Amino acid sequence: QDKQDPKAGKEKAQSCAMCHGNEGMAQMPNAPHLAGQPTAYLAEQLKAFRSGARKNEIMSVIAKPLSDADIDNLAAYYSSFEIQLKR
Amino acid sequence: QDKQDPKAGKEKAQSCAMCHGNEGMAQMPNAPHLAGQPTAYLAEQLKAFRSGARKNEIMSVIAKPLSDADIDNLAAYYSSFEIQLKR
Repeated sequence: QDKQDPKAGKEKAQSCAMCHGNEGMAQMPNAPHLAGQPTAYLAEQLKAFRSGARKNEIMSVIAKPLSDADIDNLAAYYSSFEIQLKR
Repeated sequence: QDKQDPKAGKEKAQSCAMCHGNEGMAQMPNAPHLAGQPTAYLAEQLKAFRSGARKNEIMSVIAKPLSDADIDNLAAYYSSFEIQLKR
C-alpha cells in the first residue's frame, strides 16, 4: 500500500478527533489544528512522537502503535483539508 | 511587560515570515501553518525549541535568542489570526 489513503486515514483519525476535531480543527486548548498542515510535516511529527524524538504525554502513547501506513494515511487525511484566513 | 503584545510579536515575526508566511500561512513545504494555532501551544513549542526539548535544525537556532516576552508576543501574534476550513 504505497499510496497514501486519506479514507483509511479518516478511519484512523476517529481516535484523534477528541483533541484535534473531526476535520482537524482543534477542540482542546493545547492541541494544534491539523487541518491543511503539509503532509510531510504531519508525517514527520507523528514519526517523531512514535520514536520519542518529540515528546508529549498524550501523543507519545497514541503514536506508539501506528504503522508507517497509518501515519501516511493520517497525514494524507488531515492535509487534505484546505484552510484559509478568516478575513 | 506581562501582557502579550501581538504588535511586538508582528515585529519579531518578520524573521519567521520566510518559512511561516507574513500571516502564519506556511510558505515552505515542511513548515507548519502557525495562523490561528492556540497561543499556549505556540508558546510551548517555541520554549521547547529554545530549551532543546524539541529539535529542528532551523528552529533550534532561531528560538535560542528569544526571550519569554518575545515568545509570548509571537504566540499572541500568530494566534490572533482566525482560520477556517475552505468548504
